[in-house]
Amino acid sequence: MNNTKPKVVILGAGMGGVKAAQCFADAPVDVTIVDQNNYQFFAPLLYQLSTGILEESEIALPVRQFFHSQSNVDFHLGCVTGFDTEKKIVATDTGDISYDYLIVALGSTTRYFGMSDIEEHSFPMKTLSEAAAIRDHLMRCIESAAHETDEKRRQALLTFIIVGGGPTGVEEAGAIAELLHDTLPPDYPHLDLKKADVKLIEMTDSLLMMMPMSLRKSAAESLRKKGVDVRLNTAVSNYDGQTVTFKDGETLSSHTLIWASGVQAVDICKELGAEQAGDGRIIVNKDLSVPGLPEVYVIGDCAHMVEKEGERPLATIAPYAMQEGACAAQNILAQIKGQPQTDFVSHDLGAMAMVGRFAGVMAKGSMKMDGIIAWAAWLAVHVIRLAGWNTNFIVLYKWLLNTLFGTRPACLTSEKQIVK
Amino acid sequence: MNNTKPKVVILGAGMGGVKAAQCFADAPVDVTIVDQNNYQFFAPLLYQLSTGILEESEIALPVRQFFHSQSNVDFHLGCVTGFDTEKKIVATDTGDISYDYLIVALGSTTRYFGMSDIEEHSFPMKTLSEAAAIRDHLMRCIESAAHETDEKRRQALLTFIIVGGGPTGVEEAGAIAELLHDTLPPDYPHLDLKKADVKLIEMTDSLLMMMPMSLRKSAAESLRKKGVDVRLNTAVSNYDGQTVTFKDGETLSSHTLIWASGVQAVDICKELGAEQAGDGRIIVNKDLSVPGLPEVYVIGDCAHMVEKEGERPLATIAPYAMQEGACAAQNILAQIKGQPQTDFVSHDLGAMAMVGRFAGVMAKGSMKMDGIIAWAAWLAVHVIRLAGWNTNFIVLYKWLLNTLFGTRPACLTSEKQIVK
Repeated sequence: MNNTKPKVVILGAGMGGVKAAQCFADAPVDVTIVDQNNYQFFAPLLYQLSTGILEESEIALPVRQFFHSQSNVDFHLGCVTGFDTEKKIVATDTGDISYDYLIVALGSTTRYFGMSDIEEHSFPMKTLSEAAAIRDHLMRCIESAAHETDEKRRQALLTFIIVGGGPTGVEEAGAIAELLHDTLPPDYPHLDLKKADVKLIEMTDSLLMMMPMSLRKSAAESLRKKGVDVRLNTAVSNYDGQTVTFKDGETLSSHTLIWASGVQAVDICKELGAEQAGDGRIIVNKDLSVPGLPEVYVIGDCAHMVEKEGERPLATIAPYAMQEGACAAQNILAQIKGQPQTDFVSHDLGAMAMVGRFAGVMAKGSMKMDGIIAWAAWLAVHVIRLAGWNTNFIVLYKWLLNTLFGTRPACLTSEKQIVK
Repeated sequence: MNNTKPKVVILGAGMGGVKAAQCFADAPVDVTIVDQNNYQFFAPLLYQLSTGILEESEIALPVRQFFHSQSNVDFHLGCVTGFDTEKKIVATDTGDISYDYLIVALGSTTRYFGMSDIEEHSFPMKTLSEAAAIRDHLMRCIESAAHETDEKRRQALLTFIIVGGGPTGVEEAGAIAELLHDTLPPDYPHLDLKKADVKLIEMTDSLLMMMPMSLRKSAAESLRKKGVDVRLNTAVSNYDGQTVTFKDGETLSSHTLIWASGVQAVDICKELGAEQAGDGRIIVNKDLSVPGLPEVYVIGDCAHMVEKEGERPLATIAPYAMQEGACAAQNILAQIKGQPQTDFVSHDLGAMAMVGRFAGVMAKGSMKMDGIIAWAAWLAVHVIRLAGWNTNFIVLYKWLLNTLFGTRPACLTSEKQIVK
């Protein structure tokens, strides 16, 4: 094809990548957005997938559906396998793609800080299939417990440990506690689910570090009321699939350890050949370009962005990824026109977390809320942000039934997968 | 536990197994129902899962939810691995279970008639994960076609072959044709999906053998109007994943062959040591017990039940499985009381099949219908039969949107599965 328009390739169809592509609407460029899945998923609701509240299609939307009215965007299904920044080519398992400008928005994966036993035996929760694997495992543990006559073994099957007191850990712990105490008891009349033990383990002295202190305490209190054993100032040092070992030497029998305690940039980032921070994030210039590679921009969870000298890098959250996506797109358009680039400026949209039914926390600037108001606000914000109008209605309906009756329609085990 | 009540073990929580268990309500027996999944799924809607219309939780319900008000039923999650009919023990991968009376309701699997190449390369559709694997494959074929520059290879990616003109094949062919022609075109502006080729292959001279001749013709006509190439009197002899070979020597390039052409009893049936028909079904007495094993009953797809000498065995459909489940339960209760068993008598509930939007066929006795009325009746019957009141509403909503706009929310690829 004869085509003289500059070609922009965006790697990753997450929040940042899709936002960047949308910012090229009507611009004289050809955009290709690449992802290893044909959908974007909404990570803040993975915990609801992992606990049987929602299903895949409710938190995932085919990437192509974002671009029905934007004819300069094409989608390429493929997994990035390498970069040739001299020839300006990205390699994928479904073919090479050449670019004039590149936006790397490949996101993050779970970080285990070198603890390979934990990596082998714990459950991460960063993708749809990881969340579905947790759901399958939870249901199987409870089924095994229902027929286990040995009390110690039964207790180990009913002990669920979540490591990491950020929003994911808090939401997962609350959702598992409610699953065990509200949803499942009618299904298991002969199993005393009150004995189930949900522990949320946090290394520092409080949950939800990004929140004001009063809300951190409120979240911990709400979780404890729901029956979660919140253990602060506690670190896990090992897990072999049967026994958790804490840093102070204490051990505990459990068949389930969910690791929500660390993120790092996806591995493929190192193939770019750029300087990386300790967590693998690529160190970017203030305009989000990569030092020495002026046509390559990195945004979102795989960018190490420091706005002001001496500050911590920006958190790996969706609002910053989207803001960075918009900035990178503007800077590419400026570059094409020969205009100067703009430095990235973040806008804090506040923070919120769901603790469980009628319990949430949210903060923005000096505004702080908890309890039922923050819970309702959380529901509203998440259903609005969720892409796909036709599923939003289903999500609201499922949340309504869950709130009223504890209903969770997707408490299903998984079959062994067919490999073709 | 001291327990002198007779113990009934039901293997399989499909339509027949669950019905049998329900028929023991208030009876002085302890029932254990065993399944390798924690749910029952509604097989007639698997084709909607495989084509992105519905999702798992909408056609599957946890087994335990059938028995909230029936305290003499327990559920055991496990895969049957063997039988000891002398000691009256069933072995499963999660432990042995002893019984006084046994109902085998393990269902059927796909039959390839010894064609191992077809078994290796084609897609069966008898379980949730098999249907989900088809969905993933369809989406990947279309994505590959979108970037394929070689016309021949693109056409092979867009050629979808369904073998078997029974209800499953008819419904799958119609659903794939509508997926390609109604749902996906807005997602693929640069791909001419009109060139996609859906072929339904049937060995005999008509589709839907159980229907009156006029409806068989009506179904074929409706499918052809939807763009399906219906090939009667045609048989497939080989498939290597790239090329289909027909019995007359013709070949055709295609990346997709869905095999809906044969069923046989699940393999484990042979471990029972009873006489089997050619399709593996266990030959049962008129009261559904196994010759020589008076405390073992076989029902549903794995029973070879001939009501009258010289007739064909009963078809492998859900209504007969449920009727047999009720009969087996009654006969076990009669045996316990020392009363005589009753012979099974089937009741024909008629047959129906969905061809696509506004097109269905149904027949019962001398009553015959096709077109929009049969289509509406199909929807009504299937949503009523579907277990789980809270998902029925979601299914109706999804069908409404699908009918009005072609919407299919679950057109998602699958991630490579995590093996833990």
